[in-house]
Amino acid sequence: MAISKKVKSVLDGASWIRRMFEEGEEMKRIHGEENVFDFSLGNPDVEPPDSLKKQLKALADNPVLGMHRYMANSGYSETRSAIAAVLAEESGLPFQEDHIVMTVGAAGGLNVILKTILDEGEEVIVPSPYFVEYRFYIDNAGGSLRLVDTNEDFSLDVDAIEKAIHRNTKAVLINSPNNPTGVVYSHESLEALGKVLERKSRELGKTLYLVSDEAYKRLVYDHITLPVVFHYYPHTLRVISHSKDLALAGERIGYIAINPKCEDIDELIAGLVFANRTLGFVNAPALMQRLVGSLQKNSVNIHAYEERRDLFYNTLTAFGYPVVKPQGAFYLFPKAPIEDDVAFTRELQEKRILVVPGRGFGKPGHFRIAYCVDKAKIEKALPGFKEAAEKYNLKAERGK
Amino acid sequence: MAISKKVKSVLDGASWIRRMFEEGEEMKRIHGEENVFDFSLGNPDVEPPDSLKKQLKALADNPVLGMHRYMANSGYSETRSAIAAVLAEESGLPFQEDHIVMTVGAAGGLNVILKTILDEGEEVIVPSPYFVEYRFYIDNAGGSLRLVDTNEDFSLDVDAIEKAIHRNTKAVLINSPNNPTGVVYSHESLEALGKVLERKSRELGKTLYLVSDEAYKRLVYDHITLPVVFHYYPHTLRVISHSKDLALAGERIGYIAINPKCEDIDELIAGLVFANRTLGFVNAPALMQRLVGSLQKNSVNIHAYEERRDLFYNTLTAFGYPVVKPQGAFYLFPKAPIEDDVAFTRELQEKRILVVPGRGFGKPGHFRIAYCVDKAKIEKALPGFKEAAEKYNLKAERGK
Repeated sequence: MAISKKVKSVLDGASWIRRMFEEGEEMKRIHGEENVFDFSLGNPDVEPPDSLKKQLKALADNPVLGMHRYMANSGYSETRSAIAAVLAEESGLPFQEDHIVMTVGAAGGLNVILKTILDEGEEVIVPSPYFVEYRFYIDNAGGSLRLVDTNEDFSLDVDAIEKAIHRNTKAVLINSPNNPTGVVYSHESLEALGKVLERKSRELGKTLYLVSDEAYKRLVYDHITLPVVFHYYPHTLRVISHSKDLALAGERIGYIAINPKCEDIDELIAGLVFANRTLGFVNAPALMQRLVGSLQKNSVNIHAYEERRDLFYNTLTAFGYPVVKPQGAFYLFPKAPIEDDVAFTRELQEKRILVVPGRGFGKPGHFRIAYCVDKAKIEKALPGFKEAAEKYNLKAERGK
Repeated sequence: MAISKKVKSVLDGASWIRRMFEEGEEMKRIHGEENVFDFSLGNPDVEPPDSLKKQLKALADNPVLGMHRYMANSGYSETRSAIAAVLAEESGLPFQEDHIVMTVGAAGGLNVILKTILDEGEEVIVPSPYFVEYRFYIDNAGGSLRLVDTNEDFSLDVDAIEKAIHRNTKAVLINSPNNPTGVVYSHESLEALGKVLERKSRELGKTLYLVSDEAYKRLVYDHITLPVVFHYYPHTLRVISHSKDLALAGERIGYIAINPKCEDIDELIAGLVFANRTLGFVNAPALMQRLVGSLQKNSVNIHAYEERRDLFYNTLTAFGYPVVKPQGAFYLFPKAPIEDDVAFTRELQEKRILVVPGRGFGKPGHFRIAYCVDKAKIEKALPGFKEAAEKYNLKAERGK
């Protein structure tokens, strides 16, 4: 056998997201792009804000000497300072450039954090349903994943998290706005979680970390404000991606923000910078670092996403699909009309609708819709969802 | 303790390269940039070729719709096809786009390969002196590093490699042109190595891999041609970076090329793509992928480097430093006049000359000079090297 046993074993269980995306690409070749309704991948169809395009043009027109060279492994000082200033304003905490480590997207940032904090065999608690790549990230660092179910409405079950914490626990990894549910964790639930982590850290005589994946931070709707995670617990690491808010998914740019109140902070930062270097990232892509620093308050058009959410949510609910109304990200996670989510996904696929079965997120019986696609396409796909609802006699009353 | 035991333990033994680079940055703040002779880091001082700048400008002026979005984890089909065509021409082998996986630089590529092929505890043989980051890359994948000394002239000691191969060996990782020595491995040595790997694979009943880090591939001098590694052994993975040839070190762009003759190649490729995704790279930065595809035969001005090599090599030899004449990369690895390479490095540092002690590459008693800096600066630094030579009564005759 050529490749490692571990990699071989996971290849067969390849990501449902990528599998559906790839089947969709094949279907597009056969039926034509316009006849396939692909809601499989969180690959925003929008373009970066004009301000970003202008900056890129300015840099390309007047290149800065040395702008493609190595810099410190943590990233450009200017970029990190700009981000720290925005975070200080947002949180009221004394963020400085040293509290920011620029990373190869959120996936890079999470791998860097996990490598830095985990000893072999230590556990990371993740509320489920969850973004399944976490399983690999945690395993890369020699840790193990411990899933804890969320409540029926996908809100945090803090009591269940508390019960799951034991002496081998190192961190709780949350993701809000959440992929796949779109749910935003409330102030109350984060407050309760912070208290649990404080208490358990004391009881266990060790520092538990709260790792907050906020890749969808700026994609929130209904005029809500995302709670500032740093306020609830000192030992908090926030991971940000500019894949969604600035529509730069392919460019791999994001960062880690370390709560200035974290204990042993110098050692922690040194560890993160070391891991960023030695995991092979070395540094976040130089050109993108230059662009995002001044765009920390910019974002793609959120209203377009909100409009699509409303369209999808209202219509699916009217068709009788039980759906928790998401307040962020660009996902819906409806309950499937039958238990077998893969079978249901395949049925939708026959109508050229691509979604991802819930088991791809640790939650069979559901399916994920990524609505980062054109509104017209959503409208064209809705009859297919309706047919499927009718086949199983869904009634609008079942909606919640 | 906040961070993992493993990361904590290596922080104290931080990279000598980065340590000297950072001390250099501090010295520049104190003495002024122009008064510090920093030969510590392989951070090219040159700019990317004009053709690259023009392409970047064209893209920024006329953005392609969706050009910042996710693509397949292995990279853009166009880029990979363009690279495969050049490789097919170079090697006469049937390279196709599937044999190319775009990566976050060579460091990303190496981590992806090691993760894909290594089972826990398997060994990777590396000729020494060597680029010490390999130690971390191998450890990241659960493998262990086995160093094998090179010959006196830093050429491959193939017999020693053969003796080091045992049933737990998985791969031999070579780096030519070499960092830190600048040596290019000869046709004869690669032929011998290929035969050893064939024989040992047969004996052990397993496939041994040859991983060839060719980050400095296009930086070769004296009109030599770098042997095409694919010709010597079928199970070969070549890792390329565009950090040096296109001066894009900070942009993190490179690729893995898989020998079309590799056995179990579909599984191997699937493993590499999986590792690229789950290690958190996801894909190589999109914008840079678009730029490098058509620049596979371009390069920064090699002659400028060759001129600096000649200046440094001839002068140091005349001062009496024993130096193996490098034929590639932008490093020299002279013998230090005293055994304690760190002490000698500190002496040079007093003259505001920054080099890296040989022990940073597994070879005490030497020091590394990175000459990817301005010629005028090299000239200004030479008297310092002369003084140090005189202090220890070096004689030109000792040169070789």
